[in-house]
Amino acid sequence: MAGEGLSYAAAGVDIEAYERVLERVKPLIRATHSEDVALGVGPFAGLFKLPGGGHLAASADGVGTKIKVAIAASSHRGIGTDLVNHCVNDIATAGARPLFLLDYFATGKLDPEVFTQIIEGITAACREAGCALLGGETAEMPGVYALGDYDLAGFIVGMVESGLIRDPKAIRAGDVLIGLPSSGLHTNGFSLVRKVFEDEPLSRVFPELGRPLGEELLEPHRSYLLELGSIAWKGAAHITGGGVLGNLPRCLPAGLGARLGRRSWEEPPIFALVQKRGRISDDEMFGTFNMGLGMILVVDRDEVPRSAQVVGEVVPHTGGERVVIS
Amino acid sequence: MAGEGLSYAAAGVDIEAYERVLERVKPLIRATHSEDVALGVGPFAGLFKLPGGGHLAASADGVGTKIKVAIAASSHRGIGTDLVNHCVNDIATAGARPLFLLDYFATGKLDPEVFTQIIEGITAACREAGCALLGGETAEMPGVYALGDYDLAGFIVGMVESGLIRDPKAIRAGDVLIGLPSSGLHTNGFSLVRKVFEDEPLSRVFPELGRPLGEELLEPHRSYLLELGSIAWKGAAHITGGGVLGNLPRCLPAGLGARLGRRSWEEPPIFALVQKRGRISDDEMFGTFNMGLGMILVVDRDEVPRSAQVVGEVVPHTGGERVVIS
Repeated sequence: MAGEGLSYAAAGVDIEAYERVLERVKPLIRATHSEDVALGVGPFAGLFKLPGGGHLAASADGVGTKIKVAIAASSHRGIGTDLVNHCVNDIATAGARPLFLLDYFATGKLDPEVFTQIIEGITAACREAGCALLGGETAEMPGVYALGDYDLAGFIVGMVESGLIRDPKAIRAGDVLIGLPSSGLHTNGFSLVRKVFEDEPLSRVFPELGRPLGEELLEPHRSYLLELGSIAWKGAAHITGGGVLGNLPRCLPAGLGARLGRRSWEEPPIFALVQKRGRISDDEMFGTFNMGLGMILVVDRDEVPRSAQVVGEVVPHTGGERVVIS
Repeated sequence: MAGEGLSYAAAGVDIEAYERVLERVKPLIRATHSEDVALGVGPFAGLFKLPGGGHLAASADGVGTKIKVAIAASSHRGIGTDLVNHCVNDIATAGARPLFLLDYFATGKLDPEVFTQIIEGITAACREAGCALLGGETAEMPGVYALGDYDLAGFIVGMVESGLIRDPKAIRAGDVLIGLPSSGLHTNGFSLVRKVFEDEPLSRVFPELGRPLGEELLEPHRSYLLELGSIAWKGAAHITGGGVLGNLPRCLPAGLGARLGRRSWEEPPIFALVQKRGRISDDEMFGTFNMGLGMILVVDRDEVPRSAQVVGEVVPHTGGERVVIS
């Protein structure tokens, strides 16, 4: 099946090429860091030590080509929600609660209705997260963006209370992996998803989905702020670009990997539909999408809440794939 | 002359339409603000009160369609410098020194050479400003960005020491306006500039400029961090999108305006060349470009440094234009 099916790279997004160029520029980035920068390049959020004590956590995010679906459906409010929740989740993995967010909205020609819908989505999600929309930049860039097109990015800053910064070295083989369910695709893999459904109207109701395709694709990114505040976790992976395979290892120390049981969680039907129609391999699916797991937490075996969805465990890693799904 | 000459709106950028929609969404934005937000929507930087004391200043910025000139010239390092210095200057107007920056880079297909040049520019300017590049987002978005096109945004956070937050109400009629020279166009008005020079090769050497057009247009945005640290100023206006007319009033309290003497500072030759070739009115020029004044400071008459370039003064404003240039 592999070889004739679709892949994320064939859809125009080459994550490995990005990893290569990132390696090239890492020394330049590190050279800007003083001892105030608590973690190096790589985790879901950057940590900066404040002169007065405590740490700031910060993250920059976009919403990818989900924007193209929103434009086709003339429905933009959820894109604002997506942006905020993506940002909120990223810094939540560092133990941070949000302080403020800034947005960057760029378009060919400002459409007041589109812009208002996006700000409605952003501000509603900000209020939910207790996060101030502190500012932003709105740019009209004719010649860069086609008429009707836009891009949206967000920058979030949060505060990590003393003692809440997790040390990855506390993670041990035998720790339990808890999955927090996603609401669907969230904001990742859309270049591939759009290729899979390129000949389908957004109004089509697939029986598996039970609602119009456009609604399913535009379902907003969930926020995990409340869950992360109520579970004693040792590590957290936000499953975004790069999917389960790309993101789960980012919260694990060297020498450890993860084993997931594929039947241990419920996979929203959109993933099987995308896989079947695109004839996409399992590896490609798990390396691109969240597969129903929006966030994966590492928890001590003695601390697993009774209601938790256990999806796997931390295992020693001596070679081969860091994440094994069986 | 007006009516047949070029304007920023005719070049595709309508600042007034943006102001109207911003008024519409302001209540939504304010509803996300708690008492931790020190200033409302509007200034060059947002101010957020830290739980432990002191304020954070934050700003989001882009570089506009100067990117199109960089792409045509295959020269991207300066775009990185532009981004950082634009951000640094914005929060410097709030009395902040930079702590860290995050970038958002979006493109159709990642070009390692372009990306590396941009990161080189960003990191060099960050080191100059004592600012950590704490993280960023790099997005491949086929279908949104044409091949070779990209967009770049930056998000900066700085710290304002206690006692360094300026109260605009301290500004009085009779205060002196000091101009800090720009290096040229900086990052604003490029949609108009590109229209003015659309039939000219970037290699053309105009006698007024004494160097190739491309070099002149791509001259990076200056940083005013050092100057702002060495002058006792009461208010500061970073002259960016909206030009002198749009930005100078933003640092003045209600009831006050400004009078500038056009012959009191040296205008880089690029501005006269753009005006002549585009048959652009004075109002349009001053409402779009920095006209040689990258930053304008409000200073007490008794505190004007001997070497300062005095360009005007603060005057009472009872009606009509807030900024009068004579």
